[in-house]
Amino acid sequence: MTDSAASQHRQSQPFLSLHKPTPIDGSFAGKHIVTVDQFSKADLRALFDVVFRFREGVRAGDRSLIELCATHVMASLFYEASTRTDMSFQAAMRRLGGRVIAASNGVQFSSVYKGEDLADSIRAAACYADVIVLRHPEVGSSYQAAWYLDQLGEQLGHRTLVISGGDGVGEHPTQALLDMFTIVDLKGGTSGKMITMVGDLKHGRTVHSLAKLIGRLEPKDCTLALVSPDMLQMPDYIVEYLRQRNIALVQTDTLADVLPDSDVVYWTRVQEERFDNRADYEAIRDAFVMTPDVLASAKPDMILMHPLPRKNEMGDAAQRDALDRDPRAAYFKQMENGMFVRMAILAAVLGTVKP
Amino acid sequence: MTDSAASQHRQSQPFLSLHKPTPIDGSFAGKHIVTVDQFSKADLRALFDVVFRFREGVRAGDRSLIELCATHVMASLFYEASTRTDMSFQAAMRRLGGRVIAASNGVQFSSVYKGEDLADSIRAAACYADVIVLRHPEVGSSYQAAWYLDQLGEQLGHRTLVISGGDGVGEHPTQALLDMFTIVDLKGGTSGKMITMVGDLKHGRTVHSLAKLIGRLEPKDCTLALVSPDMLQMPDYIVEYLRQRNIALVQTDTLADVLPDSDVVYWTRVQEERFDNRADYEAIRDAFVMTPDVLASAKPDMILMHPLPRKNEMGDAAQRDALDRDPRAAYFKQMENGMFVRMAILAAVLGTVKP
Amino acid sequence: MTDSAASQHRQSQPFLSLHKPTPIDGSFAGKHIVTVDQFSKADLRALFDVVFRFREGVRAGDRSLIELCATHVMASLFYEASTRTDMSFQAAMRRLGGRVIAASNGVQFSSVYKGEDLADSIRAAACYADVIVLRHPEVGSSYQAAWYLDQLGEQLGHRTLVISGGDGVGEHPTQALLDMFTIVDLKGGTSGKMITMVGDLKHGRTVHSLAKLIGRLEPKDCTLALVSPDMLQMPDYIVEYLRQRNIALVQTDTLADVLPDSDVVYWTRVQEERFDNRADYEAIRDAFVMTPDVLASAKPDMILMHPLPRKNEMGDAAQRDALDRDPRAAYFKQMENGMFVRMAILAAVLGTVKP
Repeated sequence: MTDSAASQHRQSQPFLSLHKPTPIDGSFAGKHIVTVDQFSKADLRALFDVVFRFREGVRAGDRSLIELCATHVMASLFYEASTRTDMSFQAAMRRLGGRVIAASNGVQFSSVYKGEDLADSIRAAACYADVIVLRHPEVGSSYQAAWYLDQLGEQLGHRTLVISGGDGVGEHPTQALLDMFTIVDLKGGTSGKMITMVGDLKHGRTVHSLAKLIGRLEPKDCTLALVSPDMLQMPDYIVEYLRQRNIALVQTDTLADVLPDSDVVYWTRVQEERFDNRADYEAIRDAFVMTPDVLASAKPDMILMHPLPRKNEMGDAAQRDALDRDPRAAYFKQMENGMFVRMAILAAVLGTVKP
Repeated sequence: MTDSAASQHRQSQPFLSLHKPTPIDGSFAGKHIVTVDQFSKADLRALFDVVFRFREGVRAGDRSLIELCATHVMASLFYEASTRTDMSFQAAMRRLGGRVIAASNGVQFSSVYKGEDLADSIRAAACYADVIVLRHPEVGSSYQAAWYLDQLGEQLGHRTLVISGGDGVGEHPTQALLDMFTIVDLKGGTSGKMITMVGDLKHGRTVHSLAKLIGRLEPKDCTLALVSPDMLQMPDYIVEYLRQRNIALVQTDTLADVLPDSDVVYWTRVQEERFDNRADYEAIRDAFVMTPDVLASAKPDMILMHPLPRKNEMGDAAQRDALDRDPRAAYFKQMENGMFVRMAILAAVLGTVKP
Repeated sequence: MTDSAASQHRQSQPFLSLHKPTPIDGSFAGKHIVTVDQFSKADLRALFDVVFRFREGVRAGDRSLIELCATHVMASLFYEASTRTDMSFQAAMRRLGGRVIAASNGVQFSSVYKGEDLADSIRAAACYADVIVLRHPEVGSSYQAAWYLDQLGEQLGHRTLVISGGDGVGEHPTQALLDMFTIVDLKGGTSGKMITMVGDLKHGRTVHSLAKLIGRLEPKDCTLALVSPDMLQMPDYIVEYLRQRNIALVQTDTLADVLPDSDVVYWTRVQEERFDNRADYEAIRDAFVMTPDVLASAKPDMILMHPLPRKNEMGDAAQRDALDRDPRAAYFKQMENGMFVRMAILAAVLGTVKP
């Protein structure tokens, strides 16, 4: 972008302080969803109840579901590739009978690529849709959207909502919610459990948000094991946050220390780009590849989670096939739960269901 | 494209004379929409009544709307980026309960880019859809579409309709209709009003069509002020057309001459590319930037319109923010009206509502 | 793709033997559609009855159709451009009231282009959709999809189906079905008829599958004329297959030998790339261009078919226009039938209609 073009553009970062996310506090209707910090323990419980109900309904082919959002329109604005989140939200809205609009030609062929300001693109979509799902590389972009949507709402007399589909290295709230729901779904919750997070815990957006939600649920006798290379450890502010909530912490760079006792293993990728020199990466790489041999020493009833997509952090094609057949592999159930969680969020903020 | 490939292609221009647009003349059902010349004063009045009804219905969540086009399919064919028009038509069709199809991968990844003839692509879409919205860079492309669709209709026994979403520097009829509707909506019409158009009035497709529609409504005591650099004045044939309809005209290159008396200001961009040398552009540029300071001298109850997207013709980000908060800024309401106008056009030509 | 990336990827070819397509054998519900070999004579008859019914229903605006798949979601996964097949399937699903999801930004902007494995992308879509339409350049890709979907189904407790939208030079079953239906529709079937296939019969996926289906219907007194350059003749295994079903065969490189007696002419392109040197191509090219002059010597009640898109195999724009106006030109009806055939397939495998 040229300097003059840049001078035309609002930056997203400042909106992190300009827009104050509204706590759900028992009432979802009419609220933007930009951070997991909006959800209290009770809000999570109430939301998850709806998720369970919607999942049953979808599986039973319950036709009343497609009446819930039949008159609502969702705009899908994805400024970077995230096929899962994108299709998951589309399917969620459609399974509620809702309508979805998006740039037919893809956003890379759209006005935004002609240098249009995000604030203007967001308000354009808001003129047509009741809710916008925004995926954008800039941290704070969903806060920026919320801020402009509130202003526009006063002018138009009705307010369009934004749900963050992930903003850069910032937050991806619905990913964290579906991760948390999956643990509740498959392990009955986090109390008395050891949850192990593995990989790049320093930059991993999903593990940060999930850790926050685990703390939010105030589990009893819960241990959180953080397995990462020394230079990629969980940030102090999150570690501190977890300590305050009496969550036992184990920090190590050796999976073997904690795998045998883990009830949940949340696996993520360690990217070579994060290392200053290739040697450092080579030295630890193999310790952060999950394979059937590695999983052999895990509990028979544990679950292996992963946000997906995956590359080489689960070995080669043959090793992945073997892992996928293991009943402990929970990542596809996790992905499917994403759709049900997003159905609940959409219906809740649109006010067509009351969690 | 190679010469031989080119020789394979029909040109759109000739179809401007081959296809004769059908006047609406009180009956919208089954008619292609390719130019504003199809609409009489009575047709506009009748259409706008439907627009008002549909807008009320959408705001009230009226479920009967989604029954109107529940069995109809619209194909969205956009051969150039126009996210607003595209999403506006999608939302319009969906708020009528209609279905929308488009090339999943975007047209730039589709047959058309493999050198297929527009006439063949149009007829392919026509085999699947009841109505096609076409956006194409060639003037006359929507006329070409209409011509082939009429032929195909005889062969298939049912006819698919085309609605122009803008053809190059030609026409963009639904944009003109939504502009006209917004003036009727917010100012009660054009009689006794001063409408001021500012910017590149020579090449501006939207101002040409809007000027025609203003004349069509035969307003009483209406003044049209045309503010542009000398070299970018409104074409004579439109000026002549307006004179014949007793519309008072003021032509100037100085906004200050007319701004204080204007009831409607329609702002458009002056593009540097239009000038032979940079100096000429530099000389006038600042006179064609709308800012809060400029708007200060306008009437308290006037409205500021803009077709959007906008670049630097409304100043920098901070100045745009200030303008957007001004109650006279009507461009977002104008954009929202676009969806309601397109709902009315779609339902009317599909015969599911009778204006 | 880098070697290491490649080593991450499963190849599709092996799945041609790993996945055994299930014969329809009177029951469509819950079956993947990957090859025409799944269809018996009775299956084709039963399917075509549904196609006729659906076509009548659509033309009559029968609202009961949009109830059939109202709670179902179809994922459209197109890894190469095929706008017709893509839009045809979308329209088919939507005319059944079904919902469609796809990557908003097009697959070329999606995870798959970030080097994700097809097996993972397919399973992601399967977590959100009830049926996947897959178009992929690799032979066996739809078999691979079916294989992984069956595995995933065991894990999730419900199975998503795949319908092939064409896999490379492999099969394109729904194209063959719509071609066969069109012959039944417009000529009452193949018994007593001469069906002439023209063009590159060696590499032509569509003519191979259509030839198989013609054999499958066990026509009486049917002649199949195969017109191609010597080096582009129909493969022996198909010729053999047809002989076994007592279908009279004529093989020639001269259309004039058979055109006057043909009831159906299925025209396809001869691509220059198939020839070792340009001279060979120049020598035969003109003999494989259909024009109004060529069609003049055909029966008045024959039909001219073509899978489309077409390039120069039907002459220049003017010649194509003339052909398109000829009542014997059946390729647009053929294309429209594609939507009705796909409606029948979708409703049948989803179990919402019983052929």
